[in-house]
Formats: sequence, structure tokens, C-alpha cells
Amino acid sequence: MHTAVVTSQEIQAKIDLKTKPLGALGQLEKLAFQIASVQTSLSPQLVNPHIIVFAASHGIASQGVSAYPSEVTPQMVLNFIGGGAAINVFTRQHGIKLLLVDAGVDYDFEKNDKLIHAKVGFGTKNFAEAPAMTAAECRKCMEKGAELVRDVHETGANVIGFGEMGIGNTSSASAIMSRLLDIPIEECVGKGTGLSDAQLAQKIAVLARAMDLHYNVGGDPESVLATFGGFEIAMMCGAMQEAARLGMLVLVDGFIASVSYLCAFKMNADIRRNAVFCHQSDEKGHRLLLQALEADALLSLDMRLGEGTGCALAYPLLQSAVAFLNEMASFESAGVSQKTEY
Amino acid sequence: MHTAVVTSQEIQAKIDLKTKPLGALGQLEKLAFQIASVQTSLSPQLVNPHIIVFAASHGIASQGVSAYPSEVTPQMVLNFIGGGAAINVFTRQHGIKLLLVDAGVDYDFEKNDKLIHAKVGFGTKNFAEAPAMTAAECRKCMEKGAELVRDVHETGANVIGFGEMGIGNTSSASAIMSRLLDIPIEECVGKGTGLSDAQLAQKIAVLARAMDLHYNVGGDPESVLATFGGFEIAMMCGAMQEAARLGMLVLVDGFIASVSYLCAFKMNADIRRNAVFCHQSDEKGHRLLLQALEADALLSLDMRLGEGTGCALAYPLLQSAVAFLNEMASFESAGVSQKTEY
Repeated sequence: MHTAVVTSQEIQAKIDLKTKPLGALGQLEKLAFQIASVQTSLSPQLVNPHIIVFAASHGIASQGVSAYPSEVTPQMVLNFIGGGAAINVFTRQHGIKLLLVDAGVDYDFEKNDKLIHAKVGFGTKNFAEAPAMTAAECRKCMEKGAELVRDVHETGANVIGFGEMGIGNTSSASAIMSRLLDIPIEECVGKGTGLSDAQLAQKIAVLARAMDLHYNVGGDPESVLATFGGFEIAMMCGAMQEAARLGMLVLVDGFIASVSYLCAFKMNADIRRNAVFCHQSDEKGHRLLLQALEADALLSLDMRLGEGTGCALAYPLLQSAVAFLNEMASFESAGVSQKTEY
Repeated sequence: MHTAVVTSQEIQAKIDLKTKPLGALGQLEKLAFQIASVQTSLSPQLVNPHIIVFAASHGIASQGVSAYPSEVTPQMVLNFIGGGAAINVFTRQHGIKLLLVDAGVDYDFEKNDKLIHAKVGFGTKNFAEAPAMTAAECRKCMEKGAELVRDVHETGANVIGFGEMGIGNTSSASAIMSRLLDIPIEECVGKGTGLSDAQLAQKIAVLARAMDLHYNVGGDPESVLATFGGFEIAMMCGAMQEAARLGMLVLVDGFIASVSYLCAFKMNADIRRNAVFCHQSDEKGHRLLLQALEADALLSLDMRLGEGTGCALAYPLLQSAVAFLNEMASFESAGVSQKTEY
């Protein structure tokens, strides 16, 4: 498709001349502006949408920081493969292609063409005792994520969302957020998938000690990512960067995915232009994180599931933004009077 | 379709046994619970969704309460007929059947099979001087609304949304809300489709005088509806009541539609069970109104357009709620471990 150079003024003018009061479609108008800007087109199109779900196991999960046992991670991967998880349902609903990636689950999956085998290890180390991964492993995760996105991009896809599964990964995400944003760990920690008050206190205590243990890790995002880990978090971080570099729209899901985004943003802030924040989750740290990123999420449905579900549920709003820009009449074409000037 | 008696406990159990942490789909779970309850079915279905847009002219519009001239109302009706308005785009996107109703526009539309001619008058009277309509006109509006819904119901439809178009109708809606909820008018008035600060002050002054003029109209919802009017507001009120009576899901749009709902709710509170609040608009009074109704809207996109756009945009979330209930695996069927008991 030939795309002529398009200015911000032209995009805004097209939005403003639609038959509606100025700004009356609210966030949809901002979204339409963003999509048109990313695609440098007055008639943007969403092509071949994908969501990639990255799964990994976490050493920190041995510390009683999650309401669910670690074996749920491989069990849920098998559920994704079987088509029975929430993200399967929502991607089917919206015609979004779903890719599943074993980024480092502590389980030996049989070869299966519905699962991309990209295992960097059988789970991270317990970062309450040692760095979650080595610098080399972290780099390998990011490169693998980028490679997967290049494959998706080659199909013609121009919009991609990212989700995750990994029992224990809100702990990783909270630690990374705390260190990168210099916010006390207790502000970044929530009840995950459903801890009691006592379990939450335990989670905070474990993480506070881990933050102390790694006090000498500075603010370099790659070092922080390696230390507090999450193979899926690192792989998403690389994937998001590559998607933005390729000019794709990057759909950011809930708390964990937003922390991957935070790492990517700290590495190269240009990603902001391509990022669409899909859902503000019920997880305490997420609200604070989106504030720090000055991001307004499209949905706020009190969900706390991950898996890319926020991306899938928000996707029709992207389609609506594109549709109104392409299909609505203008004041002139419809013969509708504009605002009265007093 | 045979629907066995289904208890709330059975519905909740089905939701809770899906492969996700308890409550992790947030508002979608409440929505699934509501839809299953309304349909008394563990496998609810959304059938033949409709949105009806009611248009009418308002005498109060002569008082400089709107940013747009009155002729925009018939112009926008022609735009709806031509398929170029926002609601046309969003209903097409989601396969929702759109019906357009002339409830009382001050314009003589040619016969057109895309427009339902249900004109009760050529616009309401200016309620700054006299009641907007007679008691008989108000009753006629409500009966017509109910009749239209019966026709829709006969197609097998079990979900219906309502929207409106009428320059001046935020003034009507604010006055009705103020009287029915006993909230000072200035708290119920916003900038509508885009007033300046001076215009807003003018709107408040006009409405405050009108409220004084009709101080002797008590809290009876039908009297309040007739006095402060809106043929489209009254017709929607009757339509919503009938839809609930017929066991349909009632999708409530923005500020004006929520005021129609308020009137309906005051007439028969049973409607609450069937109502889905689709969008919290940017209009100041709407936030307050939803609070008073203890209603959480599904979307909050800062829109202020009406036309039923909030209903159309929220519709895929209803589909998602139904889909997860019908399609997701249970812990048992997927072989996923449940929560660890400490």
C-alpha cells in the first residue's frame, strides 16, 4: 500500500470534520489519531492482528508468594493449547491469531505445533537468593522475542498484543517496577491472583528482603530485568521493542505486560508512540505504574488475569477507532450544520 | 428453547470453576452472572441485537442552551438514514440491527423505509415557559416506545439498546434528573456537546428559572417527564420498561438514556435486573446519576455523543461475557490445579 506523507494536522482535521461535536468520541478519537499517526495514513487499516502469550516458571514461586502452585503454569499452557482458557475464547471471538510460547516453563512439553518452543531454561532462579537469570539469558530472551515478532510481521500483521502466564510473576513485576521507578516495594505489590492479607504480608516481606539483597543493582533496565527476572517478562520486552521498531501497534495488557513495557520504554522511549494500553487491572501496582507512564488504559474492568485478555477485549475499540475515521460522513458530505458561533 | 430453572448458586458455581483465579475476569463475571440470571440459563445466548435511536426536537433549544442549532436534529436523522453517523458505523461493525425513530422532530420527513414515523409532535414546547408536553402526549410516547419494542422482540431479539438525538436534550435530561433525585440543577448540568463557560452559565440560568416555574410539579416520574419533556426521552422510557417486562437485556447508553432509565426505574424498579450500563460519559451530570443509581458502566471513554454509541461499543463485552461462560474450560476438564490452601 502506498502511504503518502500525512501530517498530524491532516489527521486531526479529518477527525474534527466527522459529523459529531468536536471531541465527542473521546478516547476513540485519540486512538484514531494514534493509529493514523503510526501508519502515517488518513485511512489506516488493522491487518492480521496477533496476540503472543509467553509462559515461564519462576524460582520465586517457591517462597509462597502466589495463591496457586507452580504446576499451574504448565497446566495452563496445556489449557491454552487445548483452547479452553479465557484468551482462547476472546481471540476466537475477535479473529485474533493466538501464538503460544514456552519461554521457560519448568516442564518438558511434547513437541506440539500449537506451542512455540523457545525455552531459555526450566524456570528462573529464586531471586530471593540469587539473580533470576544471567545477563546472557536475559539477552537471549529479548532476542528470541524480537525474532518471533519479525515472523509475525512477515505475515503482514500490523497490530500485536502480548500476554503472559507464570505463577509468581507479579512478584517479579513488582520488584522490577520498584527498582526502575524508585517506588517502595510495598506500593508495587498487590494480591496477585488472590492472596489473603497474611499471604500478602508474606509476599511483601519476601520481596523487601530480595530488594535488599540486590541493592547494588543500579537502574539499568537490562540488569534489573535479569536480576528480578521472568523469562516471559524479558521475552515480551524484546518483542515489544521489535514490534515498535517495525511500525506495528503494540497492545499492552495488564500489570506484568506493563512492566515489560516499562523496561522497553527505559531502553528506548520511542515505543510510546506505538503503545496502546488496553486494560487497567485491579492489581494495586498497575494503577501506579500507568500513572507513572502517563497512560490512560482503554478498559478498566477490574480484571486480574493476564494472558493478554485485556488486549483481546480492547481490540474492537481499535477497530471502532479505525472504522469511524474511514466510514463516518463529514459535516459537508452529510449536509449537517456545524457549531453555532455566538 | 427450553430453559430449566437455574439458581444463582449454579450460575456462580459455573463461573467460579472456569480456569482462572476466582473473580479474575472482574466486571465480565458480573455481566455473565446477570445475563445468565435474566435468561435463567447456564448457557445464555445473545440473539438478534438491536439498537433503536429516537430523535426529537426541543422547544428549550430556542433558549441558547446548546452549542448547535436545532436544525442539526433533522439533519442528523438524514445522516443516520444515509448511514454516515457514528452509530451507523458501530452497529455495522458489531452486526447490530439499527432502527431509527422520528419521535417528534420539527421537520416533515418524506416517507422512508429506513425511518419509523412515530411523530408525537413537531418538537416539545419550551419548558422555560410551559410544560414540554401534555400528560396525554407523554403517555402516547411511552406506549409507542413499548409497541416498537414488542415488534423487535417478535424477531427473537433478546438484547436491545437505546440511543437518542435531539439538540437541547441534555437540558431536558438535567431538569428531570434534578427533580427526580432532588439534586440542585447546577450539579446536573454539563457542557452538553460543547458549550463555552459563558454558555454553560446561561444554560444553568435558563434551567434554574424553569425549575422555579414548575416548582409545583412533584416527584411523580410521569409528571416530571411530561413537564421537562423530550419526546425521545419519554419514548425511550416506555421502550425500556417494555423490554425489561419481556425479559430482554436493556442496554443503557449515556446521559440522556440514563435519565430515561431513571424515569423507568422510578416507575418500576424491577428494570434494574435487566439493565446494563454501557458507558459513563464525560457529561458532568452523568457521573452523579450513575452514582445515584449505584451503577458501574462497562466503558468510560470520555465520549459525549449519545446516539446509542456507548451501547454499540460495549456490545462485544456482553458477547465476551457470554462466550467465556459457554466456552472456557473448567479446572476439572482442563486438569488445572486449584488454589493452594495454606
